[in-house]
Amino acid sequence: MRTTGETLAATLAAELPDGAVVTDPDLLVPYRHDQASGTEAGQPAVAVFPRGTEQVQAVMRVAHGRGVPVVPRGAGSGLSGGANAIDGCVLLCLERMDAIRDIRPADGYAVVEPGVINQRLREAAAAHGLWYAPDPASRDWCTIGGNIATNAGGLCCVKYGSTRDSVLGLEVVLADGRVTRVGRRALKGVAGYDLVSLFVGSEGTLGVITEARLRLRPLPAAPTTTVAVFPDLASAGRAVEKIMNVATPSLLELMDATTLAAVERFQPMGLDASAAALLLAQSDLPGQAGTAEAEAVASVCEAAGATESYRSEDAAQADMLLAARRLAFPALEHLGAWLLDDIAVPRSRIVETISGVERIAATRDVVIGTFGHAGDGNLHPMIVYPRDDPDAERRALAAFDDLLGLALRVGGTVSGEHGVGVLKRRGLADELDPVARSLHTSIKQALDPTGILNPGKALPLRP
Amino acid sequence: MRTTGETLAATLAAELPDGAVVTDPDLLVPYRHDQASGTEAGQPAVAVFPRGTEQVQAVMRVAHGRGVPVVPRGAGSGLSGGANAIDGCVLLCLERMDAIRDIRPADGYAVVEPGVINQRLREAAAAHGLWYAPDPASRDWCTIGGNIATNAGGLCCVKYGSTRDSVLGLEVVLADGRVTRVGRRALKGVAGYDLVSLFVGSEGTLGVITEARLRLRPLPAAPTTTVAVFPDLASAGRAVEKIMNVATPSLLELMDATTLAAVERFQPMGLDASAAALLLAQSDLPGQAGTAEAEAVASVCEAAGATESYRSEDAAQADMLLAARRLAFPALEHLGAWLLDDIAVPRSRIVETISGVERIAATRDVVIGTFGHAGDGNLHPMIVYPRDDPDAERRALAAFDDLLGLALRVGGTVSGEHGVGVLKRRGLADELDPVARSLHTSIKQALDPTGILNPGKALPLRP
Repeated sequence: MRTTGETLAATLAAELPDGAVVTDPDLLVPYRHDQASGTEAGQPAVAVFPRGTEQVQAVMRVAHGRGVPVVPRGAGSGLSGGANAIDGCVLLCLERMDAIRDIRPADGYAVVEPGVINQRLREAAAAHGLWYAPDPASRDWCTIGGNIATNAGGLCCVKYGSTRDSVLGLEVVLADGRVTRVGRRALKGVAGYDLVSLFVGSEGTLGVITEARLRLRPLPAAPTTTVAVFPDLASAGRAVEKIMNVATPSLLELMDATTLAAVERFQPMGLDASAAALLLAQSDLPGQAGTAEAEAVASVCEAAGATESYRSEDAAQADMLLAARRLAFPALEHLGAWLLDDIAVPRSRIVETISGVERIAATRDVVIGTFGHAGDGNLHPMIVYPRDDPDAERRALAAFDDLLGLALRVGGTVSGEHGVGVLKRRGLADELDPVARSLHTSIKQALDPTGILNPGKALPLRP
Repeated sequence: MRTTGETLAATLAAELPDGAVVTDPDLLVPYRHDQASGTEAGQPAVAVFPRGTEQVQAVMRVAHGRGVPVVPRGAGSGLSGGANAIDGCVLLCLERMDAIRDIRPADGYAVVEPGVINQRLREAAAAHGLWYAPDPASRDWCTIGGNIATNAGGLCCVKYGSTRDSVLGLEVVLADGRVTRVGRRALKGVAGYDLVSLFVGSEGTLGVITEARLRLRPLPAAPTTTVAVFPDLASAGRAVEKIMNVATPSLLELMDATTLAAVERFQPMGLDASAAALLLAQSDLPGQAGTAEAEAVASVCEAAGATESYRSEDAAQADMLLAARRLAFPALEHLGAWLLDDIAVPRSRIVETISGVERIAATRDVVIGTFGHAGDGNLHPMIVYPRDDPDAERRALAAFDDLLGLALRVGGTVSGEHGVGVLKRRGLADELDPVARSLHTSIKQALDPTGILNPGKALPLRP
């Protein structure tokens, strides 16, 4: 007997509260895609909106029993298509599981449901004088569950690590509907395999996160910000290498000439149009130590050849200096259709990488602005091309592939923080050796033997 | 045909250089055990000392072909029996693979073979002004490979994390002799499942580490040290909770009354014999920020009820203050036979845990001194009992089990940093839920289907 969407929806509706099952194709539209441009999405059979772990288990049992694919999703802020729908799938929408269950200052952690918005947790922690570090650019609307599923990054990673580094424990519902708790309440522990790290960043292919225990830290001091302008890429690259050996910046961002020009055109801020690169660094050490660290960063930049550098301890002024960096994406987006890449390279190869990006832009006849988290080598070359121009789109897609090849040639990775989703499956296959690819297959098979969890995502394209 | 030790050794000898295969039982003695007291070890068939990845692969292919168990080991400094021999096994001794292959300041990492001594890497990094953070107590003689296999901890974890947090990439030989490289050269990346974290801490049950790429950081500033003495446990516990919310100490250690008394008897240092607990904290923030952080710690301690607190920025004096903490283990060891535990609990439960330890000591009629890394809730209750007293040994073993039960009752873990080995397999089974236990079995089966890698170690005792 073939399972139709109707009987599937009816079976799910019997397990879930009223209003938790949606089949109207018009209502499903906003749930079909995440934010990745240039990715395809299928037509889901149904979207479900469970309100608790037992309801997630019920959904997984139904899907497992019928062999129906399940695509878990948070807010859909992802940039690799990891949350895109698959034809005939159950979209498992976790947005209604949005309770902050506990904040425990004495233990240094929070317990949250997966649909909690990142910024809401930050605010709830701040009310206790505490800080949830991970700060993806989409933090105002992305969910903790999605952050964990993609091991989301952000500006803070250079000092505080990716989302993984703030996850102490997880509750996870497996493909067959069983539930388990992995990780711990203590801040430290080594008992058993590191299952938390296996689920973090697995993009919904190994289990569905239904609760997370997240580390909170003391709120850092107001940052001291340093900006330095460089006449050529090489000097900016030298500065990045050296900064990371004399300081521990809480943020170290780069914008290349194309990005600077786009930002200045988008919103004139008096940026030096002749500059090859701009570096933006922050220290969150308190008081004089922050000043000293910022001065160390500035003098490294000057010694490396910066034509200009300035520093601010004033929060409002720091925000203004950060504004240019925050405008990088909208300013480039304003120029046309876009593809955003997310490579990470050893930091000694940043200059070579950006030079390679410039050559790719010339060869493929597209505009590519590069900005990103220079301190950890995570660069976002953003390809911009004319809308409604199929030939330009073809060239842009070719440039995207070129960028992944470039990242691998300089010893980098095809994804620094956005994940593999559907966009980077071929790149991932190129990055991994055949044995590592077979380990991915073995682990997927061990945890999801019938392959219903987010099939066609996150795993290397060829085994 | 039964494989005898002789034909096994001859087959291995044909694959390895002269002197790389040892079968003389007398010569094998020092390789049969790690440092865990109260654990059994079997009689190995042979020990091999490969000098490169291909030789490790050859050993694994021979063992895999014959179904012979393999126990990988570094220096044997482990404290859970994870490196103890199994009857008829191949002891895979990695101590001769001790090259520091590369130190790359511009990229912030070192590449080392598994047999490199932790302290040797620290010194090599320091020559470049850089720092390898992980600092297990055995750092003068333990190996990087063993540190990774056990996800070793140390004093630095409270600020810089466990060994995992300094591992960027690994080369691993699998059970069947295939080799793979997992992880990355960039400081950040999310492409594919986190196989690095799966191998780190898996105690040789999933693969053999043959190379590691390790993160190096800027050398921290000379620390400012604070010592505080407490009249009761509750006030010390309150201080720990609060310190971690207002500061990020680079070290936060605790000693209880039993430990203090043992240290003072072992080597009189003028410690307050009436104190219930001593806290030792360091800040490695530079200059005035370090002073300010130390002052914040001291004022938290005083507000919590410390009877005395003092502070030193002088390196020699700081070493003296740390000396008491470093004497905890030898001072207690001096009192008789011992069993060292390694639990970690949420920090709000430290006081309850230490009180529980005291009750267990009274009930089981043994001495238990508790010291450890209070900042991350990792406590080392050390059970001391008369040598050559079978009844006392029985009571000590019962107390050891009681301690694991106590850790789990307060929401903690049976191992904060020493690993499971053979000592904690029942405790691990108690800690994990049945689904998490089955995930361990599935993953072990996926990566080592014939079960030759360190069988009888690290996994929960019951599936």
